Amino acid sequence: MEGSVILMKKLPVLAVFATLLLTHLTRADDPLLSWNDTAPKKAIIAFVEKVTKEGSPDFARPEERIAAFDNDGTLWAEKPIYFQFQFAIDRVKALASRHPEWKQQPPFNYILAGDMKALLADEKSMMALMALSHAGMTTDDFNKIVKDWLHTAKHPKTERLYTQMVYQPMLELLAYLRANGFKTFIVSGGGVEFMRCFAEQTYDIPPQQVVGSSSKMKYEIRHAKPVLLRLPEVQFVDDKQGKPIGIETFIGRRPIAAFGNSDGDQQMLEWTMAGSGARFVFIVHHDDAEREWAYDRKSDVGRLDTAWDEALAKGWIVVSMKDDWKTIFPQLSE
Amino acid sequence: MEGSVILMKKLPVLAVFATLLLTHLTRADDPLLSWNDTAPKKAIIAFVEKVTKEGSPDFARPEERIAAFDNDGTLWAEKPIYFQFQFAIDRVKALASRHPEWKQQPPFNYILAGDMKALLADEKSMMALMALSHAGMTTDDFNKIVKDWLHTAKHPKTERLYTQMVYQPMLELLAYLRANGFKTFIVSGGGVEFMRCFAEQTYDIPPQQVVGSSSKMKYEIRHAKPVLLRLPEVQFVDDKQGKPIGIETFIGRRPIAAFGNSDGDQQMLEWTMAGSGARFVFIVHHDDAEREWAYDRKSDVGRLDTAWDEALAKGWIVVSMKDDWKTIFPQLSE
Repeated sequence: MEGSVILMKKLPVLAVFATLLLTHLTRADDPLLSWNDTAPKKAIIAFVEKVTKEGSPDFARPEERIAAFDNDGTLWAEKPIYFQFQFAIDRVKALASRHPEWKQQPPFNYILAGDMKALLADEKSMMALMALSHAGMTTDDFNKIVKDWLHTAKHPKTERLYTQMVYQPMLELLAYLRANGFKTFIVSGGGVEFMRCFAEQTYDIPPQQVVGSSSKMKYEIRHAKPVLLRLPEVQFVDDKQGKPIGIETFIGRRPIAAFGNSDGDQQMLEWTMAGSGARFVFIVHHDDAEREWAYDRKSDVGRLDTAWDEALAKGWIVVSMKDDWKTIFPQLSE
Repeated sequence: MEGSVILMKKLPVLAVFATLLLTHLTRADDPLLSWNDTAPKKAIIAFVEKVTKEGSPDFARPEERIAAFDNDGTLWAEKPIYFQFQFAIDRVKALASRHPEWKQQPPFNYILAGDMKALLADEKSMMALMALSHAGMTTDDFNKIVKDWLHTAKHPKTERLYTQMVYQPMLELLAYLRANGFKTFIVSGGGVEFMRCFAEQTYDIPPQQVVGSSSKMKYEIRHAKPVLLRLPEVQFVDDKQGKPIGIETFIGRRPIAAFGNSDGDQQMLEWTMAGSGARFVFIVHHDDAEREWAYDRKSDVGRLDTAWDEALAKGWIVVSMKDDWKTIFPQLSE
């Protein structure tokens, strides 16, 4: 209140009103400010309007308004390597002196020798690395280490914190859907506990709306206090065919909208589109070498994403980061 | 509107007002109408008031207000056998003619020979029965069969539908917590997909807030349409030590309140109580032979629930169905 009184004294009254009005108008009229006025934005708005309009043949009751978002490459960046993979690598380096056996043991040996090519060549390395490098920790300790890392580690190219590598247009899409009665879920191949360390603050998505891969755990009483320990075994892989299974197990209801960018998302998008009533999916196309990366269909090393063939054949929307997004990353306050 | 106009004409105005006022008062002042005015009811209200009062040292932010409810024996009855067990038995009988091999194969042979004692003697029978008897079905087909059963099968003692065997005081507790900003979750050893067939309508708990045991599934394209098939393998057992693990995996946040009735709930209650800040748990005591059952600590065959020793040692509340509940089951409309 004090601030606005001072402002009123310094500026002509009309100018103040004009500014407030403009802010109000742009926010209220355009919930997708960072999207260019191209086909994807129009399609999003048309979909949301028809499923929320009572009496419309496409009306979806609020409880049916489930939207599923992939995380890596859809809500935040995934280059040069998955951020959670980078976290695990940093963790291995930090713990290496306590584990002399890692020098001979894949995948640790690749990391310690700096052989990223060998590490990335094996698709299973990431899951193995995560399961092994965090095993034996309590869930509380694990969360603390992830949060410390997220508060300090910087992206090698942009020097931003990793949580600042989220896509502004997608943040607006999340908020727009929620404002229209949707529940927004993350459905990602990433570790569920890792993602929950930032999803609430970064995306406004509470822990119970994060679906992901998980390790087996063990319940134990230590010093008269119960703890949950991470075991070196994978419990569930929420990727590819695993995504519809994760949706069924965790959410128990088929989404009416889903968003992804690669083969890991193909089955989730298929599953979403195969339900009855109005449906909406898109694939994010990484085609902006200047502002992000232009790896096109090559989200994994050495092969092309086949999800694209299905997207093209079925007429699913492909969002071009270059053409359809006005901004990529959020502006940082000074 | 028409109805009230007619009513006004037929009855003296004052009488109408008095009735409305009374209804309003009892609902607003007593959200736990079916609870006697004994210690448990007072403790529930005291807990809810302190965690929702801003500025109170015990205040819990709305996102922290997670309440976990066991299902069998806590939200609905579990005698003479778990209702889901009865569903599986009915299913085995219905399918027996198509499976001649079941006559020799445990646990099917016990059911077909009517040997309930042998069936119940093996703790693993229920999980095995569920995994095997529903395997190979699509999730859509499974849900349809469960819903058909819930709409037709009657409880052998009360002749009510199974969904009418829920506890009225617990329905009021669910609603009271939600009215105070809590999210209510089921955390049960029962099959997650079975429970979701009635949880939304019966308890007002949406599918994504039901945590339970699950089978492995397979994603497959059939006739150009994706389906999820149930496999004859257990994916996760949400019971005993599995309950805190289920809470961590599905909800990702420790509840501040939890409710159970047997050993299957002990670790969930321990885990809930071990968090910081105000906490609340109780155990439902089945001690009402007249209105329900009086099996005391013997929720499983042949042994005593040890959760009670911990409850007594730690001073957790034990709710007596006989003394603390005014009503057990909801009144049925004619």
